[in-house]
Amino acid sequence: MNNWQKRDLKYIWHPYTQMKDCKLMPPILIEKAQGLKLYDTEGNFYYDTISSWWCNVHGHNHPKIKDAIKKQLDSLEHVLFAGFTHKPAIALAEKIISLAPTKLTKVFFSDNGSTAVEVALKMSFQYWKNTGKPKKTKFISLDYGYHGDTFGTMSVSGIDLFNEAFSLLFFPSYKVPSPYCYRCPVAKERDTCDIDCIQALEKLLEKKSNEVAGIILEPLILASGGMIIYPKEYLARVANLAREFNVHLIVDEVATGFGRTGKMFASDYVDFDPDFMCLSKGITSGYLPLALTLTTDKIYKAFYADYKLKKTFYHGHTYTANPISCSAALASLEVFEEEKTLKRTKKLIPLFKSLLKGFINLPAVGDIRSIGLIGAMELVRRKDTKEAFSIKNRIGLEVYKRGLKKNLVLRPLGNIIYLFLPLCIKEDELQDILERTYSVIKSL
Amino acid sequence: MNNWQKRDLKYIWHPYTQMKDCKLMPPILIEKAQGLKLYDTEGNFYYDTISSWWCNVHGHNHPKIKDAIKKQLDSLEHVLFAGFTHKPAIALAEKIISLAPTKLTKVFFSDNGSTAVEVALKMSFQYWKNTGKPKKTKFISLDYGYHGDTFGTMSVSGIDLFNEAFSLLFFPSYKVPSPYCYRCPVAKERDTCDIDCIQALEKLLEKKSNEVAGIILEPLILASGGMIIYPKEYLARVANLAREFNVHLIVDEVATGFGRTGKMFASDYVDFDPDFMCLSKGITSGYLPLALTLTTDKIYKAFYADYKLKKTFYHGHTYTANPISCSAALASLEVFEEEKTLKRTKKLIPLFKSLLKGFINLPAVGDIRSIGLIGAMELVRRKDTKEAFSIKNRIGLEVYKRGLKKNLVLRPLGNIIYLFLPLCIKEDELQDILERTYSVIKSL
Repeated sequence: MNNWQKRDLKYIWHPYTQMKDCKLMPPILIEKAQGLKLYDTEGNFYYDTISSWWCNVHGHNHPKIKDAIKKQLDSLEHVLFAGFTHKPAIALAEKIISLAPTKLTKVFFSDNGSTAVEVALKMSFQYWKNTGKPKKTKFISLDYGYHGDTFGTMSVSGIDLFNEAFSLLFFPSYKVPSPYCYRCPVAKERDTCDIDCIQALEKLLEKKSNEVAGIILEPLILASGGMIIYPKEYLARVANLAREFNVHLIVDEVATGFGRTGKMFASDYVDFDPDFMCLSKGITSGYLPLALTLTTDKIYKAFYADYKLKKTFYHGHTYTANPISCSAALASLEVFEEEKTLKRTKKLIPLFKSLLKGFINLPAVGDIRSIGLIGAMELVRRKDTKEAFSIKNRIGLEVYKRGLKKNLVLRPLGNIIYLFLPLCIKEDELQDILERTYSVIKSL
Repeated sequence: MNNWQKRDLKYIWHPYTQMKDCKLMPPILIEKAQGLKLYDTEGNFYYDTISSWWCNVHGHNHPKIKDAIKKQLDSLEHVLFAGFTHKPAIALAEKIISLAPTKLTKVFFSDNGSTAVEVALKMSFQYWKNTGKPKKTKFISLDYGYHGDTFGTMSVSGIDLFNEAFSLLFFPSYKVPSPYCYRCPVAKERDTCDIDCIQALEKLLEKKSNEVAGIILEPLILASGGMIIYPKEYLARVANLAREFNVHLIVDEVATGFGRTGKMFASDYVDFDPDFMCLSKGITSGYLPLALTLTTDKIYKAFYADYKLKKTFYHGHTYTANPISCSAALASLEVFEEEKTLKRTKKLIPLFKSLLKGFINLPAVGDIRSIGLIGAMELVRRKDTKEAFSIKNRIGLEVYKRGLKKNLVLRPLGNIIYLFLPLCIKEDELQDILERTYSVIKSL
């Protein structure tokens, strides 16, 4: 352990970390990064195989994004965003609206995924109040869904290891089974099912829609819940149900947005009109904190009224629409165009999928799933019964340790090992990472 | 309205803003800023009299902070903060701990004031669970307190115009009267009282301390609640009660930290040991989003255990400890030393106080209060009865409009008009701003 690491452990409490684990495995001191690679102070490199928590898109140390930030620093670093505005926020809002599903026309800024979701929940809740339906106060979410770590977002996330300790303080919400095909909640097979797992949601709405404000879910992939990739038909049917029963549909694209699934937004795979879309992470290509909540004219108009009618949306954060973060986001969207990022990604997806397929022959791999440049495998004790490893085995930690030795950041989600690759990845890097990952999983 | 403003109103929903008001008063388009001044695209300037929501410390376009950000951009813009670490975070944590109250020894990073408070609430709550006192689940806060806009932080804030619409979804918490001397909740006078307003808290703790996790408050000034500056004795007595009744004390220094009150932290005015301190806003001198939750070794150790015991603190945000934001914060702390910011501030405070005193002769000014370079006046309809202006009068909005014409950003808090000045302010600027403010209030 070097001196910096000792100082780290003296002063810092790391996120999602049992700090006692750091005694044997101190945090690795990174001092620079380039493209896909993180470099520590000892000269070792690590492939940033999970895009530094799913946020890096165009690679580290990208000249265009850096330059945009530096340029913005020379004019305006920040100004409060009530009563005042600035070009980077306006240009970004306009650009994002041009890319988002048609009916999303308004942008509300905040700092991270949790606040982007809190904003959507609050807007949905207040919309019904403002429009004379104050009984519509509850939210429906999926039991493997994840939307953040603040109390509001935990209340609409699945109750699990991450947040069960705090559940006493959650507001009440409805949970429905997830479309988790490998472990189907209604014991069907995907090839022959009719998305039967949606019936629970259907029944709930039939009974309770008059008290439901909205449904929140991550489109196509329940990311933190275990990279559970689900059928597009499920999303389409949820959207139809939301419309039929007059409840809002909130899509949380914090993890899935900005090309991760092969399209700009996961929502682009399905023809529907969400009422809210939450964005963060990849929006600045992993440079700076920024989050957006998009919504429709219809929602906006329910708050647009004479001041004295008390319909205003009172929410804000000091650094709302920070010009430096907005400039990074704008630059990242320009890189998407200049580097033809989505086109490049599209080319690589078939190779990625075919390389992943090979993992299913390994004894510990129960399921392989992928979309875009996200690929996951579920490790199981027994393939025939799908028996899960006990949490006490910490099989994920074992993979993580072995991954580091192979220059990979295979940070697990329980028993799920996944790759969540920066979109700037090149074919030879993709092959190298998959080979290294294969040898790690094989060694179990 | 210029074309950029039209595009703003087409796409952007501003925080804390009734967007209908923008029809007549579109947001002002700022394109650069220098020192205390914001410049719009028409060539007008505005004194940033409220430090862009209380975050700017050393002035806009500060060369040292800019350079630190640019330098950091060339090595490492970001890396996930679990399993990895970097020098800017370590150096910042070490520096902050050296400045904070003695028993605060650990730093947890997040992105904004709301999340810094959510982290403190969650740590306090889980601490009691981890140490075998799971019944201690409730928080006590002040009825004019404000701690953020997420559901957890709204639950421990005063219920008012800002958050009453959402109160159905708050977790239960106890509220006690605030030490609001101008409108004393127990009808005493400060000169002769014995901080009698604290009795409600005392009685509550006598009855309920076995179910209380912690008390949260802003030290010395309830900022969003109306810049209510309260006696140091009150804070000292709250600290004693917290200790006596074995509940945590969470100080929210998001607004008060980094020199605002004349000392580095408002908590420095009182000899006590908080269990948690929340920091954000001024930490990067208004450059970039960043927040910290400080806590003690005692709290930290209650989570430090074998993984399988499930005592881990599961919380995090993607951009946790972003290296660019940390570098800005480190540079800002260096500027405090190099420019002797606190010493300079201290010199200006008597002048500020004496200039503010003159306002009390104006017919609409009921109360004047100040600490450090924060000064507020409470506007009233009648001085003798302290009768408040009705919210429908929007007297604050009137002041704001007239302020803009005098190059001031007098954004009100209801009927409270305040100055929250960047600490880099010079004597002539201070005098100029106070004169302009005086003429605005006089014109009412």
